Amino acid sequence: MKTDDNCIFCKLANGIIPTNKIYEDDLFTVILDADPVSRGHALILPKNHYANIFELGDKETAAIFILAKKLAIHMKDVLGCDGFNILQNNGEIAGQSVFHFHLHLIPRYKEAPNNKGLLGFTHADLSEDQIREIAEKLAQ
Amino acid sequence: MKTDDNCIFCKLANGIIPTNKIYEDDLFTVILDADPVSRGHALILPKNHYANIFELGDKETAAIFILAKKLAIHMKDVLGCDGFNILQNNGEIAGQSVFHFHLHLIPRYKEAPNNKGLLGFTHADLSEDQIREIAEKLAQ
Repeated sequence: MKTDDNCIFCKLANGIIPTNKIYEDDLFTVILDADPVSRGHALILPKNHYANIFELGDKETAAIFILAKKLAIHMKDVLGCDGFNILQNNGEIAGQSVFHFHLHLIPRYKEAPNNKGLLGFTHADLSEDQIREIAEKLAQ
Repeated sequence: MKTDDNCIFCKLANGIIPTNKIYEDDLFTVILDADPVSRGHALILPKNHYANIFELGDKETAAIFILAKKLAIHMKDVLGCDGFNILQNNGEIAGQSVFHFHLHLIPRYKEAPNNKGLLGFTHADLSEDQIREIAEKLAQ
């Protein structure tokens, strides 16, 4: 196992610090977020230490969305949520605060006293031409 | 190919309506969002019609994060972004507006006149006990 002694998520994922674990397999531990945005807000943590999506191991990359789908179905059944967000942040500017890769699983509820809001989604001022230019750059 | 005649994303993913495509393979088409939250905001669209994560096909589920990682690395190289969000919404309450599964790829920039903000992230009032109870429910 490739871990970082100074990383809190390494300690949570590998059972060094006890936490609210909801699932575990060879590659991942799934825990509830200690500061949740909604009821059941969970985090998929790789047991190995990777800072972000750019570094994520090949095995974990291939397996994580299969696990995310399984858990989404399970959480919908168990929690009775009306919607579901999957979110993964990389870099401080993108809202990442712990620099160990993690995938947020966020159940959403129509009647939700414990759900203060949706993810905000603001929009950039880009013309159709500017968007097309970016597409051309990326498609090369 | 399993498509829905009334679905705009089916038409974009399968070339019925032209768009800013940046990638294509057997399973997916990747396009730039027409109303982007940042420069380079892209969407991975399955060519088959699935409403959400709960319905997503097994092949697409196994392949999508491998593609997302490749594109994140590619977009970072090409666009020079400082951060990166991956977001997937299911259900109106979770911010889904087109009911064809899609994965948002959102580059983030420190100096960003075209990036009006981060994803808002509000927090729920749940005690440690309440969180533990939810964990116990989900871990059964």
